[in-house]
Amino acid sequence: MPYEFKATRQVEFSETDAAGLMHFSNFFRFMETAEHGFYRSLGFSVAMPKTDPRLGWPRVHAEFDYKQPLRFEDHVEIHLLVREKRSKSVNFLFRFRKLTGSTAVEVARGALTIVCVAHHQDGTMSAMTIPKEIADKIEVAPAELLI
Amino acid sequence: MPYEFKATRQVEFSETDAAGLMHFSNFFRFMETAEHGFYRSLGFSVAMPKTDPRLGWPRVHAEFDYKQPLRFEDHVEIHLLVREKRSKSVNFLFRFRKLTGSTAVEVARGALTIVCVAHHQDGTMSAMTIPKEIADKIEVAPAELLI
Amino acid sequence: MPYEFKATRQVEFSETDAAGLMHFSNFFRFMETAEHGFYRSLGFSVAMPKTDPRLGWPRVHAEFDYKQPLRFEDHVEIHLLVREKRSKSVNFLFRFRKLTGSTAVEVARGALTIVCVAHHQDGTMSAMTIPKEIADKIEVAPAELLI
Amino acid sequence: MPYEFKATRQVEFSETDAAGLMHFSNFFRFMETAEHGFYRSLGFSVAMPKTDPRLGWPRVHAEFDYKQPLRFEDHVEIHLLVREKRSKSVNFLFRFRKLTGSTAVEVARGALTIVCVAHHQDGTMSAMTIPKEIADKIEVAPAELLI
Repeated sequence: MPYEFKATRQVEFSETDAAGLMHFSNFFRFMETAEHGFYRSLGFSVAMPKTDPRLGWPRVHAEFDYKQPLRFEDHVEIHLLVREKRSKSVNFLFRFRKLTGSTAVEVARGALTIVCVAHHQDGTMSAMTIPKEIADKIEVAPAELLI
Repeated sequence: MPYEFKATRQVEFSETDAAGLMHFSNFFRFMETAEHGFYRSLGFSVAMPKTDPRLGWPRVHAEFDYKQPLRFEDHVEIHLLVREKRSKSVNFLFRFRKLTGSTAVEVARGALTIVCVAHHQDGTMSAMTIPKEIADKIEVAPAELLI
Repeated sequence: MPYEFKATRQVEFSETDAAGLMHFSNFFRFMETAEHGFYRSLGFSVAMPKTDPRLGWPRVHAEFDYKQPLRFEDHVEIHLLVREKRSKSVNFLFRFRKLTGSTAVEVARGALTIVCVAHHQDGTMSAMTIPKEIADKIEVAPAELLI
Repeated sequence: MPYEFKATRQVEFSETDAAGLMHFSNFFRFMETAEHGFYRSLGFSVAMPKTDPRLGWPRVHAEFDYKQPLRFEDHVEIHLLVREKRSKSVNFLFRFRKLTGSTAVEVARGALTIVCVAHHQDGTMSAMTIPKEIADKIEVAPAELLI
């Protein structure tokens, strides 16, 4: 579906911390895992288009609300949903569900706003309209999935 | 001051990504660097109090707004400010400023809400009132610093 | 097989660095991914046995020889082989192969030596004989696989 | 001195793991912290020379022997020493010492071999002689420091 993507991960030991939990910063890495998987599912990659100027997708906002911790070897489903699409930016919602047998419990919910930019030769970046061939592939998720 | 703390870091190569920028998840790690420095400046450590039940400080919310990227070897000041203090939780504001010579430009602004919990023997956690000897040391920053 | 395990991973963006390559430290994290998968394939987990004293598996040696870099979105096979089994330690060989279509090219080769220890109440550790029920499950790989 | 460099770090919470110890992969990140500090002490940076073709310093070998663990908030001194200098590669020795009050105890010892390469337009790399202005600044450490 051009408005959602599900990735799954098993928490690795290097992702835990001395409290015995997955470090909170790694939720943001898993968020990006699903984001990049979403792009690949649409047939493109953040690393792919060799355009001039070079395209980039910096993050302008990222957040998480944590309800329950994840621990070493937990299985987690990362559910990306497109919440908003603008000419130069996209906002994603992420639902993290811990998978135990046949149950899936939401443990965290995050959001990410990315902006399309051009990387200029002098090292600066400027916001630009998302190329039509990419924008046309992305849809906003049905409202009932975004509650 | 019991309502603020400043840490500085230089961006390391392992903290950058293939876009040539510091990976956005590492802002959350730097955020925690300042948080733990703040605790040490008050005379305690998240690792210190060997209480029964064991105290913990899980994060329930974390967010960042990014204005400018950081790159390898950039010097950054991480300015923590206590924005809100409740009986069981604390909310911090973080201002990241890139230091270049004598100038300091704000590149990102983040927030973190932590909750005081008891870790029980069965692996569960429950929210608890922040111990008085810790809560008494923490003050809310003056309003003019929180704009 | 009680002497080998294969894990696969796709290189994530957060694992790359500003040189555009997977950061060399992440090969060690992938190494551990295969190690823990190997334990699970044998029916136990480094996190599982709630023994008294608590068992631990610290690393005493780790190394890598790098032949070719890995990049964002590369698929890599991590092939663990048991190279040596002693009463208190195990040495693993790791072959990393980049998977492209039907080809698999060795890009790096690593080794890891782990020691079985008891974690004592006072925070110290001491080497101990690997419990028989674990040691019995681990075999040394055939010599022809270890070349 | 053109043959050594000392960096210090305090172990951060995000660098620990569920065993309560600094994750073994982070020793390799700290190793690189000292390496880059060494370059800066000589007046250059791995990110600096905008040459054509672009210079790179990939790692071809990295290893660690671990004697004692590091824990959250431990202070560690990372002592880099140049062990060998060849036309296209450099080998460094690293001694990690845990600093407690006025004592310094060696907790780990590592080694790193880097090679100078040219990054070509087609994405390939080839080994090249270290530029004279860099090579001339690097000396091999006295033998008594390398024991």
